[in-house]
Amino acid sequence: MPRLLLERVGMAHPGDVSAIAALLDSGRLAPGEIRAVVGKTEGNGGLNDFTRGYFLQSLLHLLAARTGEPPAALAARIPCLLSGGTEGVLSPHAVLFAVREEPAAGRGLALGTGFGPRLPPGAAGTEAHIAAVEATVRAAMAASGIADPGLVFVKTPAGSLAGMARARAAAALGAARALGDVPQAQASQAALLRDLSLFSDRVAVSAGIEVPCDEVILLGEAPGWAPGLALAVRPMRDVLDIAAVQGLAAALGGPARLRAVFAKGEPDVTGHIRGQRHTMLGDTDLDAQRHLRAALGAVVAAVAGDGRVFVSGGAEHQGPAGGGLVAAIAEQDAP
Amino acid sequence: MPRLLLERVGMAHPGDVSAIAALLDSGRLAPGEIRAVVGKTEGNGGLNDFTRGYFLQSLLHLLAARTGEPPAALAARIPCLLSGGTEGVLSPHAVLFAVREEPAAGRGLALGTGFGPRLPPGAAGTEAHIAAVEATVRAAMAASGIADPGLVFVKTPAGSLAGMARARAAAALGAARALGDVPQAQASQAALLRDLSLFSDRVAVSAGIEVPCDEVILLGEAPGWAPGLALAVRPMRDVLDIAAVQGLAAALGGPARLRAVFAKGEPDVTGHIRGQRHTMLGDTDLDAQRHLRAALGAVVAAVAGDGRVFVSGGAEHQGPAGGGLVAAIAEQDAP
Amino acid sequence: MPRLLLERVGMAHPGDVSAIAALLDSGRLAPGEIRAVVGKTEGNGGLNDFTRGYFLQSLLHLLAARTGEPPAALAARIPCLLSGGTEGVLSPHAVLFAVREEPAAGRGLALGTGFGPRLPPGAAGTEAHIAAVEATVRAAMAASGIADPGLVFVKTPAGSLAGMARARAAAALGAARALGDVPQAQASQAALLRDLSLFSDRVAVSAGIEVPCDEVILLGEAPGWAPGLALAVRPMRDVLDIAAVQGLAAALGGPARLRAVFAKGEPDVTGHIRGQRHTMLGDTDLDAQRHLRAALGAVVAAVAGDGRVFVSGGAEHQGPAGGGLVAAIAEQDAP
Amino acid sequence: MPRLLLERVGMAHPGDVSAIAALLDSGRLAPGEIRAVVGKTEGNGGLNDFTRGYFLQSLLHLLAARTGEPPAALAARIPCLLSGGTEGVLSPHAVLFAVREEPAAGRGLALGTGFGPRLPPGAAGTEAHIAAVEATVRAAMAASGIADPGLVFVKTPAGSLAGMARARAAAALGAARALGDVPQAQASQAALLRDLSLFSDRVAVSAGIEVPCDEVILLGEAPGWAPGLALAVRPMRDVLDIAAVQGLAAALGGPARLRAVFAKGEPDVTGHIRGQRHTMLGDTDLDAQRHLRAALGAVVAAVAGDGRVFVSGGAEHQGPAGGGLVAAIAEQDAP
Repeated sequence: MPRLLLERVGMAHPGDVSAIAALLDSGRLAPGEIRAVVGKTEGNGGLNDFTRGYFLQSLLHLLAARTGEPPAALAARIPCLLSGGTEGVLSPHAVLFAVREEPAAGRGLALGTGFGPRLPPGAAGTEAHIAAVEATVRAAMAASGIADPGLVFVKTPAGSLAGMARARAAAALGAARALGDVPQAQASQAALLRDLSLFSDRVAVSAGIEVPCDEVILLGEAPGWAPGLALAVRPMRDVLDIAAVQGLAAALGGPARLRAVFAKGEPDVTGHIRGQRHTMLGDTDLDAQRHLRAALGAVVAAVAGDGRVFVSGGAEHQGPAGGGLVAAIAEQDAP
Repeated sequence: MPRLLLERVGMAHPGDVSAIAALLDSGRLAPGEIRAVVGKTEGNGGLNDFTRGYFLQSLLHLLAARTGEPPAALAARIPCLLSGGTEGVLSPHAVLFAVREEPAAGRGLALGTGFGPRLPPGAAGTEAHIAAVEATVRAAMAASGIADPGLVFVKTPAGSLAGMARARAAAALGAARALGDVPQAQASQAALLRDLSLFSDRVAVSAGIEVPCDEVILLGEAPGWAPGLALAVRPMRDVLDIAAVQGLAAALGGPARLRAVFAKGEPDVTGHIRGQRHTMLGDTDLDAQRHLRAALGAVVAAVAGDGRVFVSGGAEHQGPAGGGLVAAIAEQDAP
Repeated sequence: MPRLLLERVGMAHPGDVSAIAALLDSGRLAPGEIRAVVGKTEGNGGLNDFTRGYFLQSLLHLLAARTGEPPAALAARIPCLLSGGTEGVLSPHAVLFAVREEPAAGRGLALGTGFGPRLPPGAAGTEAHIAAVEATVRAAMAASGIADPGLVFVKTPAGSLAGMARARAAAALGAARALGDVPQAQASQAALLRDLSLFSDRVAVSAGIEVPCDEVILLGEAPGWAPGLALAVRPMRDVLDIAAVQGLAAALGGPARLRAVFAKGEPDVTGHIRGQRHTMLGDTDLDAQRHLRAALGAVVAAVAGDGRVFVSGGAEHQGPAGGGLVAAIAEQDAP
Repeated sequence: MPRLLLERVGMAHPGDVSAIAALLDSGRLAPGEIRAVVGKTEGNGGLNDFTRGYFLQSLLHLLAARTGEPPAALAARIPCLLSGGTEGVLSPHAVLFAVREEPAAGRGLALGTGFGPRLPPGAAGTEAHIAAVEATVRAAMAASGIADPGLVFVKTPAGSLAGMARARAAAALGAARALGDVPQAQASQAALLRDLSLFSDRVAVSAGIEVPCDEVILLGEAPGWAPGLALAVRPMRDVLDIAAVQGLAAALGGPARLRAVFAKGEPDVTGHIRGQRHTMLGDTDLDAQRHLRAALGAVVAAVAGDGRVFVSGGAEHQGPAGGGLVAAIAEQDAP
């Protein structure tokens, strides 16, 4: 039966995959076991953040050398969801999800992945986009046996720079429909970026104009997987919602057990947080998402006691408006 | 006997003192009662941050119109310590310290202020600078009757841009000597920026090349002052030290009682926090102090539940290396 | 008869009006002679650029002290058009336009100013906005006797941050209609930001969300004004159009005679200049207008041999698309 | 006999080497003919600019696939000097220098390259560093037969971030000694960053903390090379020195003949250009070198009529203080 393995590795710069090479060299992971990657690189997280592409190219060349598969083939079967921006206390790192067959039995944290078809030109941010993501998530659920995912990562195409938020919204509602978190009828194109009461607090989306098709990573309990890791997810009502983060850590046995931490959030578009004006949205020199990641990342990292937190902005329909979500994977036994 | 009054007001932009005007209009404060100001404006906090000067000019014109004193005379008797940079969740605001005579008796939180002599050219960052700040703090302690200050703010001259850190260090050690927090003999010029084991965790310094002389604000308990407000201060061992912040809030009766919150910190110069690499010190596009304030501010604000936190970088000899301090003033009775 | 006087002064920071005070002290200008101001301050030129407000506040306080008029009365009769952003070689400065009565006769460079009525809420960027600017420019032309202005500065209200470009476009087309540079029928609301073949290459607009009504400054020859200064204006086809700048300088007798220089431009929205890709529009860390001002300012300043050039981005309907305009005022006699 | 070939190619992003692949596919260049690369990528040009590494990795993988040589072997024989930062009108591009054997005779523009030994730890910015670069340049001159190079590019190790300027200075003086542009006795360690009257206006240096040894690219006339390309170099006295750029273009037959353009410059450390204050050195949000490249790049590109200009800051001992140099390679026959 499969066992989900998780390794979290740092990097000295976006082209540095030496820690992953060392993992493979040590035999701790076999190159063919790697099934998905979620990571943070140290760029600005915006359109001209090339640290994601640089890390991805470096990783694919490494895995190609170890597996004999061409980089393009690896990219087509291993979802790699990278987010730029390690402002403040955040630390560049990658979380590797691997699967190993073991002679065991039980129920445990499982992994599912999926790739959708190429999104047609002009379809980003439309009903077709919502439906495509819904289908990709449903297919990944079926294939992996994860009936009720705890967390769904989606990387999705944006037709244009101007359409990034709309693309994230479409993917979020598509995944939310697959999960049953929002009613099918309401989560249609008309609701995109409008009805913010519709959201899933277990979906984390990133969009890119260079992405040709949806990529999906599911995490959740499933029968037939080895036990050992646990997942918890909490909505955050705003960036200051430290109680949510502390509740999450407590539910998983305390910060010391955490193996990977993820958060999504956004600068409150009202311009205020708990009644006080914030300045994230009107700073010509410092992008709002850089402000957001620095602040949200610090809140989550302070609870976790570790700067290796995946923090990503752009939380449309992902958790409450002005807030977002936080998730973590922990060892079930004491570390 | 004197009672210390504290008002915390927001601003819509750095030239907006309408909330202070409203306070004066309402009679809640009389113009002549204002004795010191500590505030955050929304600039970049660096050399070309003119939001501090703009706010100060606006404030002085307002108080001049209400008191009949010229702006320069007000500036010479009211210390005004402004810090630029409200990254992330931080909210631009000013804390006004006022003193009112009341027919009462007891012991309570007191305020002391002081201005030193003009620092001679070339003296910034030397033994003469350390001694000048020590003398100014001692004089303010004597004049106010605060024998053991809980928190000392110092605004101090930097001879040059390159000497900002050294000037902060000199002022911190000078204040630390006055407080008895470091041995007189060790806290000399030779220790500046070298012996980081020497620090006070109740001193918060800012330096400016436009500042002609030291300005000091002391807070601490003293006999003959009306009760009502309480002060607490805690060292922070690093930016992630949320336990220090939570301990502070608990000591003061919980976050809801907090009336003003202050923090100092710095990007760890080792390039790592708890063993993980951070990227604050090598970002050509985003100044290290902007990273720091966003992160530290979010940690403190998340505990306080309010973005109106005075957060300032540059914590040389102010709290542990790589860390800093956090302080708050609270209502002693339930809000 | 009136003589137009022009003084160009530097500043050490946005609150520094000491050079203007010195001009007034010297008697070179009388406080009451100042009629209009055009200047550059060293902020980021964006929404959170408070250097414009700081300089304006400082200037108004200075003039109020010298004239006895309240700051608000001065602001209501002296148009003050400030642009933030002195990237690259640009130098913070202000151009003061003053008028003095002299016993002389002739025809020379004249100044006209005007203020429109308060723009109603919701009117920014509509036909009403276009018509209001047209009327203000026509009224200033009639009042000043400048039948054919060489250059028109307009400062205009933007209803919202998102509507800045549209507000500039409306003001540009309004002024262009008053000047007869575009046909009345075509320069309607429908053409805003759409038909970029409609433009005036003698209109320079800036918009602000804090501006309540249009302010207009006209320059052009008129009878009854003393001679001595000359104005020339040229369209620039793109940011690299150095021939336009050199032609302008030559027409005015060479760079050494220039007393004030102005330019408008924009990052080409096609993403290319003369067939080569530029990166101004996709830089998350550096605003496109900061890129633009640095580049356009350097081209103009290199020809002028002086960094005191008023350079402003946002050239919608002001000169050719992807280009803009350059203008200068020169001494007619050798300096 | 060898002929120097030069190709200038654009890129859509730092990982895009498709234009180079197309050149190779077309047969216009053979992979083995490429001998040196000088290019600009669109990062911030600072410590955390990873666009240089990304482009280099992409290029080496491409050439490895085409030549069969491993990337590391290619990196050890092809100097690749990349500079980040395409602010303003600058366009990301690479200049490929290739050499092809032809049955011809004459004298023409020649290429020399060289790699020095690994610089020992602690040697950066010392006399040993100066001497090492001097030796590498001399060796490359001897090997290539270029007795009097017109332009020397040096990429050199910096021991630390703080030592970048000093490392550039050491390499510049080393190359200047090899060229005979400064007296051997004076251009010693004591002169580094001190005696700015010592400079070569035909040396362009970049430094990096990741660079293990000096890499040198020489251009100059030599016997035995085919004619066809011409090189010219001019000092620039300041960033506004457009006459130098126009003189250069004229000397080469006009802007239309230019095939590659290079410039070095620096923000004047006096804080003034031709008597007017600039703001490049005190901008907390926008690095001084980004300011500089935008301005200098625009001046040079405006004359060249093309944004594909290699512009690099940090011109210590490279051209006059506060200025720098400009160079171009042109077709000798009409294009």
